[in-house]
Amino acid sequence: MNFLEEKILVDGVIKEGNILKVDSFLNHQIDIDIMRQMAYEFKRRFSGVEVNKILTIEASGIAIATLLGHLYDVPVVFAKKSQTANSTDDKYVSQAYSFTHKKMNNVFISKPYMNATDKVLIVDDFLADGEAAHALIDLVHQAGAEVMGIGIAVEKGQQKGGSKLRSEGYHVESLAIVESMDWQTQTIKFREQPVLKLQNPNLTLG
Amino acid sequence: MNFLEEKILVDGVIKEGNILKVDSFLNHQIDIDIMRQMAYEFKRRFSGVEVNKILTIEASGIAIATLLGHLYDVPVVFAKKSQTANSTDDKYVSQAYSFTHKKMNNVFISKPYMNATDKVLIVDDFLADGEAAHALIDLVHQAGAEVMGIGIAVEKGQQKGGSKLRSEGYHVESLAIVESMDWQTQTIKFREQPVLKLQNPNLTLG
Repeated sequence: MNFLEEKILVDGVIKEGNILKVDSFLNHQIDIDIMRQMAYEFKRRFSGVEVNKILTIEASGIAIATLLGHLYDVPVVFAKKSQTANSTDDKYVSQAYSFTHKKMNNVFISKPYMNATDKVLIVDDFLADGEAAHALIDLVHQAGAEVMGIGIAVEKGQQKGGSKLRSEGYHVESLAIVESMDWQTQTIKFREQPVLKLQNPNLTLG
Repeated sequence: MNFLEEKILVDGVIKEGNILKVDSFLNHQIDIDIMRQMAYEFKRRFSGVEVNKILTIEASGIAIATLLGHLYDVPVVFAKKSQTANSTDDKYVSQAYSFTHKKMNNVFISKPYMNATDKVLIVDDFLADGEAAHALIDLVHQAGAEVMGIGIAVEKGQQKGGSKLRSEGYHVESLAIVESMDWQTQTIKFREQPVLKLQNPNLTLG
């Protein structure tokens, strides 16, 4: 079991509807030590891969992208979301459906910040159906740039995003892959791990 | 002239309507070296100030908050924005008007992530009318915690936010304070600096 799987057992909360809340250390409060370990672990897993830009999507991917940019010493770009952004000459625009917010978002990058010479490492906190990841890949390709890898903190292995990306040939590294989870027993199965019980399921309210 | 004022001269663009675009290094693409220098400079300016939590607001404050959390080795919290968030038992909720998006946002923090023992350094990329800063202060106070300082990358000195916060007794440190700017001549005056000319006003489209 790695540091992120351990952290999920200690501080994660499983909610009804296949929701894993990691608000206390990943996407509302940020545990800076976990974030640093994640950055180092991504760099280790993508060692030998040439990277000159980190790409994520606002908002909760920005923290890990920033520490990774710091570690690689390369620029970070965060794609922006908007319901209203229309395609203009100065933006690459794609679309992603948000299952959390049940709406379609436009996702865009201003053209000067993605170029044909960019070798891009995409990072994000969650991978479920792969909507955001595919939009980011689309933006990279619109710019003529190359996707060198995709680093994910928590992949929901029951959903199709990860297997789809891998079958498309992308190098995907997910630090924790949730194979199954049960909110009633607060148990979780990570890929290649036995079923484990969360230690503090009532830490987070709501 | 400091590193951030210099960077604004090289890569900033002044747009009609008193808008300073720093998309190329601060709030869309992130220049990781500038971001690191900002974190070190905030730590220097707040030296001797006790800080055990960094607070910002999504999305573009997250990058600087993360590097500052890394430097202080303390947790980072980013307040979330929502048009629909209603007040519930498990959230501190405040309001801030966004002049950029011309709408009122609810700003909230889940209660477990802000406590009466927290000594909070607030950071954000921009300070104009102080709407976001005041909402963050309100959230800190709702939790019974203490605002130890407010670190801002770019303050628009013509707008009232900075002077209001200082008159309220807050320790505000802004790395660049724009006293005035003119989009037609692409000139800018920083507080305690002569009028200076942007070097590359056409770098950013749109």
